[in-house]
Amino acid sequence: MLISGRRRLLTVLLQAQKWPFQPSRDMRLVQFQASHLAGPRLGLELESDQGVIDLNAFDSTLPRTMIEFLEQGETTLSVARRALTSSLQVLPRSEVTFLAPVTRPDKVVCVGMNYVDHCKEQNVPVPKEPIIFSKFASSIVGPYDEVVLPPESQEVDWEVELAVVIGKKGKHIKTTDAMAHVAGFTVAHDVSARDWQMKRNGKQWLLGKTFDTFCPLGPALVTKDSVADPHNLKICCRVNGEVVQNSSTSQMVFKTEELIAWVSQFVTLYPGDVILTGTPPGVGVFRKPPVFLKKGDEVQCEIEGLGVIINKVV
Amino acid sequence: MLISGRRRLLTVLLQAQKWPFQPSRDMRLVQFQASHLAGPRLGLELESDQGVIDLNAFDSTLPRTMIEFLEQGETTLSVARRALTSSLQVLPRSEVTFLAPVTRPDKVVCVGMNYVDHCKEQNVPVPKEPIIFSKFASSIVGPYDEVVLPPESQEVDWEVELAVVIGKKGKHIKTTDAMAHVAGFTVAHDVSARDWQMKRNGKQWLLGKTFDTFCPLGPALVTKDSVADPHNLKICCRVNGEVVQNSSTSQMVFKTEELIAWVSQFVTLYPGDVILTGTPPGVGVFRKPPVFLKKGDEVQCEIEGLGVIINKVV
Repeated sequence: MLISGRRRLLTVLLQAQKWPFQPSRDMRLVQFQASHLAGPRLGLELESDQGVIDLNAFDSTLPRTMIEFLEQGETTLSVARRALTSSLQVLPRSEVTFLAPVTRPDKVVCVGMNYVDHCKEQNVPVPKEPIIFSKFASSIVGPYDEVVLPPESQEVDWEVELAVVIGKKGKHIKTTDAMAHVAGFTVAHDVSARDWQMKRNGKQWLLGKTFDTFCPLGPALVTKDSVADPHNLKICCRVNGEVVQNSSTSQMVFKTEELIAWVSQFVTLYPGDVILTGTPPGVGVFRKPPVFLKKGDEVQCEIEGLGVIINKVV
Repeated sequence: MLISGRRRLLTVLLQAQKWPFQPSRDMRLVQFQASHLAGPRLGLELESDQGVIDLNAFDSTLPRTMIEFLEQGETTLSVARRALTSSLQVLPRSEVTFLAPVTRPDKVVCVGMNYVDHCKEQNVPVPKEPIIFSKFASSIVGPYDEVVLPPESQEVDWEVELAVVIGKKGKHIKTTDAMAHVAGFTVAHDVSARDWQMKRNGKQWLLGKTFDTFCPLGPALVTKDSVADPHNLKICCRVNGEVVQNSSTSQMVFKTEELIAWVSQFVTLYPGDVILTGTPPGVGVFRKPPVFLKKGDEVQCEIEGLGVIINKVV
């Protein structure tokens, strides 16, 4: 009786200590498949190879897709927080295939020329307004999936990018309110066929940017409360182990808040919408001579605190 | 017994006559809402104001969205054919609010400069390859919904277009196979903010094309077997009753089959994907002096056999 009472007191004290503060562990939401479980599922990637919490096993009432999860806002997020604390329903990583953390979003918004150092590399002025283009959602693949080199292009290039995932619907969002509309951040590879982007299709960038498999995303949607400052993260790309891009998100011309305010002048943003915020210098097309991806290459895109995505070119 | 036997014979004869041929009535699939029925539903628009068949009431196992309906292919289409013959579960038009026949597609693909006469109007050569751009799905509204004039643009223009709706998934589709991937056709209004399309955003057309409400669609997805020749249809746009565009889909540079083959080189096409096939001459921006839409205008976009969509500018 006494021991039980002490335990209860300890639990209350621990809860009181935990809840007024940020979660002590990063919240890394993932979509995954496992051969012994039906359909795509939602999970939480744990640190240091500790495995993945199966959120749908933890609470069978949770939705199975990230977009539906985000649509329910704080209701589902609080379940995920409990799951993270519990460390129940953990699957070993070896049993899990990671999908992109968001699939079939309404929009994949992309921003061109959004790194100060990338503009310098091209010898062009820093843009006064964001330059917005897009990919189709059908180009999204998982964090460790293959990038398929299309026979239609001879100039496929790499671009590591910080991706913002929208958590709350909005239109005409003010910069001061913008972070309330962000669910979190992930790593994107904005694969780009330069011939189609720059020389064909009436110079509309879409086709060069949207071949199937041209948008690897992941490994996790890291919730915003787990990222101290999204605009002060090391960002880098390696091709076959060689560092080709190496910068900081502090170089972004238009930050997350400004991009959300800008884009939401035009369109309603929905939960799950993805904004690729531009790439730092070091892409292949501006090298002398230019360098492009070839079959067998392995591209690693990494952002500090968010993780690394690794995509083989086939 | 004799009468019953005769009736059966008559039924068999009628069925034998009907089924080897095209359905005698057009199949006009719609998405709609009705105040006394839950959620968006699927229906069949009947000719000459005879109302709308509630497909979900006719068969409660049918999906509620057009994309899911198309994904099931012949299975669901055959139910719709039976419903059309039965004329059961008809709602009066006055009880029905039409939605766009497709909502939240993976892609809204658009084609620029795709009418011979529209190229002449601009004094530019007919393109040798299709020019592809896009709208976000969030710009889609219903056939009689309002187009909202954004305060960010002073140059909002009209464009009537034939829209192709994809019925079957495919990649690298041959022109000879392309029609097998088409579900049907509908009318689109490719509303365009010329200032944003032509002068801003690094000349990427996306933003000028994708403001919310800039893609009215409808009124129905007319299945391909109900359209004798999609490339020989009168196409016209009226603003406040005055004819401003008046041409034929025979003027299309790249026809449906070529567009599907072209686009599917780059991306997998999915059921529900929409392709806007370009506009004929008569748009406001090339008039002397240019004319743009203003609050209170009513735009009617009409295509022979497909119907008319009517959108007030507010």
